[in-house]
Amino acid sequence: MLAYLADWRAEIEDALERVLAASGAPPAVSEPIRYSLVAPGKRLRPILALAAAEAVGHLDGTPTADARALAMPAACAVEMIHSYSLVHDDLPAMDNDAWRRGRPTTHVVYGDGLAVLAGDGLLTDAFAVLAADRSPATPAAGRTASPERRLRALGILARAAGSRGMVGGQAIDLAAVGGSATFDAASLEDMHLRKTGALIRAAATMGAVLAGGDDDAVAAIDTYARELGLAFQIIDDILDVEGSNDALGKTAGKDAAAGKPTFPSLHGLAESKALAAACIERAHAALAGCRLQGRLDEIADWSLGRRK
Amino acid sequence: MLAYLADWRAEIEDALERVLAASGAPPAVSEPIRYSLVAPGKRLRPILALAAAEAVGHLDGTPTADARALAMPAACAVEMIHSYSLVHDDLPAMDNDAWRRGRPTTHVVYGDGLAVLAGDGLLTDAFAVLAADRSPATPAAGRTASPERRLRALGILARAAGSRGMVGGQAIDLAAVGGSATFDAASLEDMHLRKTGALIRAAATMGAVLAGGDDDAVAAIDTYARELGLAFQIIDDILDVEGSNDALGKTAGKDAAAGKPTFPSLHGLAESKALAAACIERAHAALAGCRLQGRLDEIADWSLGRRK
Repeated sequence: MLAYLADWRAEIEDALERVLAASGAPPAVSEPIRYSLVAPGKRLRPILALAAAEAVGHLDGTPTADARALAMPAACAVEMIHSYSLVHDDLPAMDNDAWRRGRPTTHVVYGDGLAVLAGDGLLTDAFAVLAADRSPATPAAGRTASPERRLRALGILARAAGSRGMVGGQAIDLAAVGGSATFDAASLEDMHLRKTGALIRAAATMGAVLAGGDDDAVAAIDTYARELGLAFQIIDDILDVEGSNDALGKTAGKDAAAGKPTFPSLHGLAESKALAAACIERAHAALAGCRLQGRLDEIADWSLGRRK
Repeated sequence: MLAYLADWRAEIEDALERVLAASGAPPAVSEPIRYSLVAPGKRLRPILALAAAEAVGHLDGTPTADARALAMPAACAVEMIHSYSLVHDDLPAMDNDAWRRGRPTTHVVYGDGLAVLAGDGLLTDAFAVLAADRSPATPAAGRTASPERRLRALGILARAAGSRGMVGGQAIDLAAVGGSATFDAASLEDMHLRKTGALIRAAATMGAVLAGGDDDAVAAIDTYARELGLAFQIIDDILDVEGSNDALGKTAGKDAAAGKPTFPSLHGLAESKALAAACIERAHAALAGCRLQGRLDEIADWSLGRRK
């Protein structure tokens, strides 16, 4: 565990609290939204947004705290979208999971209808956070990126989370369960690049864009995050085989029970671990070509070694 | 029926087709998205976006077709968000409606899981359409508004559709069904201003913003659309009492059967009609103060007289 990640998580959770406090939502939906968003999580995606902002900030001497402040609306937005996706994916009509992040899932506590609405609200509000001239996500003394850069980040997020990205990947996944479709290695990778990879890439590239990164830096961080995202999914699949409910905070062994295609089911455990390690190597290589210093390399190594 | 509305609907539906063609979504989700979006509808919200753009365009001599082109990304985005809201509201976990726009609802055809995902995709893709530098919604020869104005429109849409707006209104509505909450006139109006009014307002103000409207024009159109939206909901409630399934293309008498509070149930039919007419009067007055010419007045009168 990297020591500064605890500080970053605290910064992110403070920002999320400010977003919730400023929402203006009626209690009927603000309560399930809060329940869904403040559940303990790794906060990988917002951490990547901050780390990418720091990395491009190093290139022109931006202080690290200033770079993180510029990226904080994107960090909050991507975590809100990640949270919404968990709430909707857990619904009985989808993966039907009652346990997540060590607690009952949102629909178990609030019912299916309010879980749908809480997800819808988190998804929509995420774009409001990024669009705002004075976002509640931004720390008091923090600067806001230019409208051009915010709009560009917003487009990256919408394309990554939408029907060609995360939503499309989940639809492919849903169609595969109980269906007769057989997945080869290429279509499994395509599904995961959409379902989990797209949002992880968007998190990092938004951070780079908002902190003022040029095209080369943004492209290098995009490649880094593509590889990291794929490694992350492979490791998720491995942990689903090797982990326990207690360690994961969610139901282990779900994929195998549902007959879902996974990296271990297609490649075996040992080969899956080698594939994840190779992704992380490529992630490092992308950064090395662009003199991008900071925490991104450490975060890649940490994600490879995680146990939940 | 106003003759030019058929032309505008055709322009809007062409633009929606371009958006669908450019989506890059896998078929698993692009098919339920198409089914949900191309269903025959009044297209009130995109029409308002175009009419508002024309109205502010008159002030500085912008040709009407150019003004409509500037607003077309907003017109498509707001219709995509309206369509998503219908798909999610019709789910068994919400209003449980099997019939909409003269056809079986999306979840009846594709299942609940894909209906959730189709809605999520439409909602997210709407923001991508507005954020794009070259949006597929924009006609071939049409100009795109500046990044500042697109970002401002996007913020308006996200706040209107999110947890403080449409999603919040639907949550209040959901909590009211079968609950013990009693609605007085003020809380019924608050619910509808969120549930349907917010998106109608956003449609018109986005059109005004994208076509270059100044603050006075945008404020006048916002007031106009607030009154129009409330009238629209009152008329919806009246039609639910007076209309038939065939004329409405959806299930009539649902509100009364569900024990939902409505304007007729609180105020009676005659008083409800008077309330709607008073809203339309105030809508006209808002425009008159700002020399806003064009179709907005006609559209207000048309919406008061509609039969479905």
